[in-house]
Amino acid sequence: MDLRTAIFSRRDTRHFAACEIPDSVVTRALEAAHAAPSVGLSQPWRFVMVRSLEVRQKVKELFEIANERAACEALQIEGEERVAVYRSLRLQGIVEAPLGMFVFCEMPPEGDFVLGTSTERETILWSSVCAVQNFWLSLVADGYGMGWVSIIDYEAIRPLLNTPAGWRPLGYFCIGKPSDDYGGQPMLVRDGWGERHAAPWVQWI
Amino acid sequence: MDLRTAIFSRRDTRHFAACEIPDSVVTRALEAAHAAPSVGLSQPWRFVMVRSLEVRQKVKELFEIANERAACEALQIEGEERVAVYRSLRLQGIVEAPLGMFVFCEMPPEGDFVLGTSTERETILWSSVCAVQNFWLSLVADGYGMGWVSIIDYEAIRPLLNTPAGWRPLGYFCIGKPSDDYGGQPMLVRDGWGERHAAPWVQWI
Repeated sequence: MDLRTAIFSRRDTRHFAACEIPDSVVTRALEAAHAAPSVGLSQPWRFVMVRSLEVRQKVKELFEIANERAACEALQIEGEERVAVYRSLRLQGIVEAPLGMFVFCEMPPEGDFVLGTSTERETILWSSVCAVQNFWLSLVADGYGMGWVSIIDYEAIRPLLNTPAGWRPLGYFCIGKPSDDYGGQPMLVRDGWGERHAAPWVQWI
Repeated sequence: MDLRTAIFSRRDTRHFAACEIPDSVVTRALEAAHAAPSVGLSQPWRFVMVRSLEVRQKVKELFEIANERAACEALQIEGEERVAVYRSLRLQGIVEAPLGMFVFCEMPPEGDFVLGTSTERETILWSSVCAVQNFWLSLVADGYGMGWVSIIDYEAIRPLLNTPAGWRPLGYFCIGKPSDDYGGQPMLVRDGWGERHAAPWVQWI
């Protein structure tokens, strides 16, 4: 698929069809992720692919807890009308999507020299984010999709998987065949949460 | 250009040909960036495009200062042989590239409710990183390239541009026509700094 078609048709998907995702599609997405830029050639991305329904159900429970807290926060800050919209939004497809994924960033030990990170250590984490975006676009090019679930207690992920302390989680991702394209716009626009800016903020100097 | 061709031919470019970059290429890259996923539809990316040679020269000075500090750090941690390799590497093309770019992430005021960020506020920053990756791939698809300069005191960027305090810089980017593709591999591999892993770390559960 053409790059621009993939970029403009990519959605944050929360509605999935009940069909499996071929291994070849996942392999290609992982190859694309591994071709991401990484600061100082750190290649810090770590992928845990989740087929286990048991784990997905546990992740769903973590989401429910965090989402309830977020709704309470929304109520305090934004008021009742807005929290009603919030509660109406579908923000994940953790159990429905046939495949899940945790992405971690393995931070090098403090004191290690990683080229390009002396002034801003977070750049290592940002490399893993670039890998996620490549992964996502590759899925779209193959007719699949993904949703990024950030409404989850990130520290609660660690004991679930026994990951090392130095691995920082980027989130949980739902992967599968989209059953809705939200009319070619972000679901949050279609479902009345917000507006998309017509163009990005750009200044020329 | 095909998505996979763009993903696999994208390099962190530090060698640029002396030719201008058409406005249409920059416009397309900004459109691609603006189609990135953003947590809670925050669309937090802010772009400052730098044609000014004076600003680019100042950025180069900031790089030189930070790079000298990084080299001293490398010497202490990695020793003389390795720092000699470090000093031989070309890590930017700030003055040579006809166009530069600062990317910022406008963080919402503390206390604002941004959907999806209650558990991990950094996800807002990660949205801007996704925008950078889209921008980068769009440039590649149009025959251009980019290099991410992170060796710079991020706090020193702010007074240079008078950006608001809530804007977090992701770095400075050199944009132009690559004059070297490093033999289809990362420059840091070709020039002896590190090795690329054959495959990413993946676990299936």
